[in-house]
Amino acid sequence: MTSVVITDIGELVSFEPERPVRHDAAVVLVDGIVAWVGDAADAPAADSRVDARGGAVIPGFVDSHSHLVFAGDRADEYAARMAGQSYSAGGIRSTVAATRAAPDDELRARLAALVAQARAQGTTTLEIKSGYGLTVADEQRALRLAREVTDETTFLGAHVVPAEYASDRGAYVDLVCGPMLESCAPHARWVDVFIDSGAFTVDEARRILQAGRDAGLGLRVHAGQLAADGGVALAVELGAASVDHCTHLTDADVAALADSATVATLLPLVEFSTRQPYPDARRLLDAGVQIAIATDCNPGSNFSSSMPLAVALAVREMGVTPLEALEAATVGGARALRRSGVGEVRVGSSGGVVVLDAPSHSWLAYRPGVPLVREVVGGVR
Amino acid sequence: MTSVVITDIGELVSFEPERPVRHDAAVVLVDGIVAWVGDAADAPAADSRVDARGGAVIPGFVDSHSHLVFAGDRADEYAARMAGQSYSAGGIRSTVAATRAAPDDELRARLAALVAQARAQGTTTLEIKSGYGLTVADEQRALRLAREVTDETTFLGAHVVPAEYASDRGAYVDLVCGPMLESCAPHARWVDVFIDSGAFTVDEARRILQAGRDAGLGLRVHAGQLAADGGVALAVELGAASVDHCTHLTDADVAALADSATVATLLPLVEFSTRQPYPDARRLLDAGVQIAIATDCNPGSNFSSSMPLAVALAVREMGVTPLEALEAATVGGARALRRSGVGEVRVGSSGGVVVLDAPSHSWLAYRPGVPLVREVVGGVR
Repeated sequence: MTSVVITDIGELVSFEPERPVRHDAAVVLVDGIVAWVGDAADAPAADSRVDARGGAVIPGFVDSHSHLVFAGDRADEYAARMAGQSYSAGGIRSTVAATRAAPDDELRARLAALVAQARAQGTTTLEIKSGYGLTVADEQRALRLAREVTDETTFLGAHVVPAEYASDRGAYVDLVCGPMLESCAPHARWVDVFIDSGAFTVDEARRILQAGRDAGLGLRVHAGQLAADGGVALAVELGAASVDHCTHLTDADVAALADSATVATLLPLVEFSTRQPYPDARRLLDAGVQIAIATDCNPGSNFSSSMPLAVALAVREMGVTPLEALEAATVGGARALRRSGVGEVRVGSSGGVVVLDAPSHSWLAYRPGVPLVREVVGGVR
Repeated sequence: MTSVVITDIGELVSFEPERPVRHDAAVVLVDGIVAWVGDAADAPAADSRVDARGGAVIPGFVDSHSHLVFAGDRADEYAARMAGQSYSAGGIRSTVAATRAAPDDELRARLAALVAQARAQGTTTLEIKSGYGLTVADEQRALRLAREVTDETTFLGAHVVPAEYASDRGAYVDLVCGPMLESCAPHARWVDVFIDSGAFTVDEARRILQAGRDAGLGLRVHAGQLAADGGVALAVELGAASVDHCTHLTDADVAALADSATVATLLPLVEFSTRQPYPDARRLLDAGVQIAIATDCNPGSNFSSSMPLAVALAVREMGVTPLEALEAATVGGARALRRSGVGEVRVGSSGGVVVLDAPSHSWLAYRPGVPLVREVVGGVR
């Protein structure tokens, strides 16, 4: 057992219900898990010490939506979009081709680099989806590789219909619900479907999600990215843990979410990177909807893995305070993953803590783009 | 003499006129200055080697507009603004009070931390303004401290009229043009005026700039931040090196800039942080105006020092390509400071080079918020 005490904390954002933000606090972690939180004056001794030098300490970010197993890049598509071209789901297929062609070791090395980069930006819990394989073998491979770095793996065979099935969508849905699911389920915790005019219909999604649930997987849904498409109602109907994007919502969608345990996961970096209008987080919070903020880091619609910038964008564009945005990026992500013990700093928390080069969490919004994560302490898988 | 060779460069953005972007290149620096640029196969030996591992190499950023000598912070004002309050120049006075009260060593330590943070983000040439002292002694002190870290110091006694002169603006302008300028000029290269309804009029600015020019200083102007205020015409009339903000421009302003050697310095992080509309860089480039991009890092209207995010915002919001944005953030900044040898990678360049954790400069736009600066090599003051 090794213990570490964090001292001279400028502000501790613990998200303890009774006192979400406190001052004059210290934190002790033992073998990466929070073992003590209290007044600095009462802090027990530990094997080593991290001096926060007046910096804020926050929970490790919970990035509950990413696509990090892929090859190739789409920087040219990004530049074209910034020059006026609109986003469509079709670009996913170019990443599929590159990913299928890449050897395991290349995918593993790229994934490791992306995960390390995310951790350096304060992300300690990370969901990773498949979805650039779209064959039985390639989807299973993506999940096996993802499982090497996280327990939060999501089977997304239903990302788009691959080119070779363009003229027979039904056969692809059969494949996803049958052999592909069977091969992938042992390596996944979740099943997900991208509902979009360029991807899957609500009816196709229902079949796939029900099959995934029957195989023992939890449910996640991509919906409402480019239009109010009926996907939110489906997610609520099936009791999905999270419905992600939620850029376009009807009043009925908002009411359904508020009455459910389904988290609305907002992905502001996608709106930044696709030049779409941002979702209205204020509307959701005011209606009583549980929200999360995640990156959706992927080579197409957003290649940023920066949870700090996601928080800053939420504050600028989505009508939330810095504390509400940070809560969505930590506690919210934990709920979207149905996880306890991450996204907060309480005795038993296993998600690690982040020491900021800033006296307050509000500087995540106040200093957009500045690398404010000074150190990540603890966290266990 | 110590030499270093940079190898395995994915893409070299040198901004050499005949070949601004090249591949299969290597770069050698001797004592921090570029001594050789050419094909990797022909690279001479050097004392040490930096392996770019396929990453892009770009010039060090030239941040030609910052305000880094101050105490206190205005995170609460930022949060209030994000919640709907509008920006006004008046908040500057709260920083003035905190700065006057701070001892030299506190200001020096804060400045050093901010400069180190900027360098870690790839900024190797940095202009720093006074403007939070607003007494003879406090303005001179700010410039002396700034001069410890950069040669590009700017006297901005005309930042706002301090509270104690609120009922006698004329007396403050007299002070700025007289004893304050006399005390500050030996420590400054530039004089600057903030033209704004909350700061100084065009007529006041003309007096101050002419006095600064008579004292041997080059001219810079803040204008057009919140309205088309006549400041651009004044800057062009007086032959200022740069007119900064340029958010609001008349057609006559654009035409005047195009016919002049005055650089239009755009500060997109300010628009991000004040929720103002972004300037139209495309309109300026198409008219033949020389533009620069800088941060304006300061505790009020923008506290980000991230040149990479400024580039990403320019691409998303201002109608420029990634290469045009990078050129404005390097070559453009050098022109705004009337400097040669920085903002480019040519034999004799003293501005240092940046190795990116990305194969192309376009990733600065493609991956907003991700710390892509892997290493800064060389650069001398």
